[in-house]
Amino acid sequence: MRTEISTLGEFGLIDHLTKNIKITQSTTKRGVGDDAAIIDNGDKQTLVSTDLLLEGIHFDLVYTPLKHLGYKAAVVNFSDIYAMNGTPQQITMSLGISKRFSVEDLEEFYAGVLLACSVYGVDLVGGDTSSSLTGFTISVTCIGIADSDKVVTRDGAKDTDLIFVSGDLGAAYMGLQLLEREKQIFAGQEEQQPDFSGKEYILERQLKPEARKDIVKFLAEHNIKPTAMIDVSDGLSSDILHICKQSNVGCKIFEDRLPIDYQTASMAETFNMNVSTVALNGGEDYELLFTVPLSLHDEAIAITGIHLVGHITSAEDGCVLITRDNQSMELRAQGWTQISE
Amino acid sequence: MRTEISTLGEFGLIDHLTKNIKITQSTTKRGVGDDAAIIDNGDKQTLVSTDLLLEGIHFDLVYTPLKHLGYKAAVVNFSDIYAMNGTPQQITMSLGISKRFSVEDLEEFYAGVLLACSVYGVDLVGGDTSSSLTGFTISVTCIGIADSDKVVTRDGAKDTDLIFVSGDLGAAYMGLQLLEREKQIFAGQEEQQPDFSGKEYILERQLKPEARKDIVKFLAEHNIKPTAMIDVSDGLSSDILHICKQSNVGCKIFEDRLPIDYQTASMAETFNMNVSTVALNGGEDYELLFTVPLSLHDEAIAITGIHLVGHITSAEDGCVLITRDNQSMELRAQGWTQISE
Repeated sequence: MRTEISTLGEFGLIDHLTKNIKITQSTTKRGVGDDAAIIDNGDKQTLVSTDLLLEGIHFDLVYTPLKHLGYKAAVVNFSDIYAMNGTPQQITMSLGISKRFSVEDLEEFYAGVLLACSVYGVDLVGGDTSSSLTGFTISVTCIGIADSDKVVTRDGAKDTDLIFVSGDLGAAYMGLQLLEREKQIFAGQEEQQPDFSGKEYILERQLKPEARKDIVKFLAEHNIKPTAMIDVSDGLSSDILHICKQSNVGCKIFEDRLPIDYQTASMAETFNMNVSTVALNGGEDYELLFTVPLSLHDEAIAITGIHLVGHITSAEDGCVLITRDNQSMELRAQGWTQISE
Repeated sequence: MRTEISTLGEFGLIDHLTKNIKITQSTTKRGVGDDAAIIDNGDKQTLVSTDLLLEGIHFDLVYTPLKHLGYKAAVVNFSDIYAMNGTPQQITMSLGISKRFSVEDLEEFYAGVLLACSVYGVDLVGGDTSSSLTGFTISVTCIGIADSDKVVTRDGAKDTDLIFVSGDLGAAYMGLQLLEREKQIFAGQEEQQPDFSGKEYILERQLKPEARKDIVKFLAEHNIKPTAMIDVSDGLSSDILHICKQSNVGCKIFEDRLPIDYQTASMAETFNMNVSTVALNGGEDYELLFTVPLSLHDEAIAITGIHLVGHITSAEDGCVLITRDNQSMELRAQGWTQISE
């Protein structure tokens, strides 16, 4: 018998393969299914997230400088630890390298990794390099720490909780669209270089994202512990659905509250894309999406750089987007569909 | 400027890329350069090892059943934690998968991983799966634990310490040679299958290695804390050189004390290979190689399944192999060369 992986999809496949996993160690507080695993060490908990990045799938070296790639590979794993309300402290980085790459290439990549480590106060503590028959492969594991009573998982959201997201959405996706377009236009033309002026923000969001260390700090300063949190890697739609599924709740997201940068909106118009779709499904924003009890409304809105985008409902109410013209649409992992009235 | 990676070699490349790493976190007790990183949690220390396995480089699916591959991918990481005198407790496993693979293939692979987890008492706590353009990619990270005063690194070996290795050496390498030969002989012949009777041991050593959890237990029961320890993944020569370099000592290994199984010796003869070379450089044995103070000689030799193969000397004396005919040869990462008299 042969079942094609495409029949299950990525999330379905993971569910299928992990459904038989039993937790046996008393130190394992949380296994698969969150931004990071949680390992108990008494007062403190160790957080572990891991990521595998493959050339041609997760990045394109035609328009990705290796230094940026190293920076991003590290930062996106830091982001997973912040999404648990923890602090990243160590990473390991393993590389598979084909003959196409030189020592200088790897120096560039490592310079990016070490820059990220320096900016975020993280130590690179291990990894290995090996030959690869097929391009560049990156495996990153991040270890973080958190006080045992501060860790935030995806499964604590409650009916009436407020939903906040930091920064803005969709910029990294529009940066990627721009890079892909320019790659095609300039294919084979070594002389000409694309003009990216006025588009720096969306390019930086794609090529050199940052993790929201500042938001975790602000939350602590305001004595706010979110009830659930995730980083926006697949897009707000997918990621709020993870929270709702694991918390067994529904949600209402308001289209007119989605935070969108001017460059994102402008580029979406150029590409004739619906900017709300971009913001909901773009992915790779690495913003923090979290829920806060309604009683903490005033404290939460005092935090700079976060936006109230909706609220949690009961599971029966489903996960919906309220559009600008006040229609209810069902939120989906990719896009949304109109709910029949 | 373009420097080919081959000019540095694997170890040279890692040294080159990691020489500028600075440790900044007080919880980082040990970074790159051992079997695992050490993270301080007070009384206990967390150990982290990671591994990236690429199809065509680290394994060949023509003769490696996916269930065995899953088992091995997990076990070789457990071995790194035992080599620190610790206990593996959690692993993460990320996969890159091309369209060539079906859901059933992945079920097989996961069955092997979960079997290893069950045998060794380890929890699978994370990871992800993603598409790959190019075959099967496996990234494994293992988290272990050890009492802070029990962790054994590679840098504690002292002059006159005894050198022990568990089990026997070279079997996994001869198993690989046999599989490679049969692959070529039987290429394209679907009807015929090779006859492996009488060669089960070397095949199992290659396809389904075990980590020496028992040795770590025996050492604790005999109140022996090795001064340095490593698992034999690259071959005894390479691995004792890691200990000697990091401990700033020399060593003397006695050829006639190398533990070699009958099947290994027999297969080496068939292939017209020097069996001592196979034992010294074969790799993938996943035995434990460790040093013990001379004063613990009697306690150490009482342990079942370990073999005294030599002793530590001062750094000036170099790292040498004493052959059966009592000549001194310089030990090298691959092979050895005669020392001029």
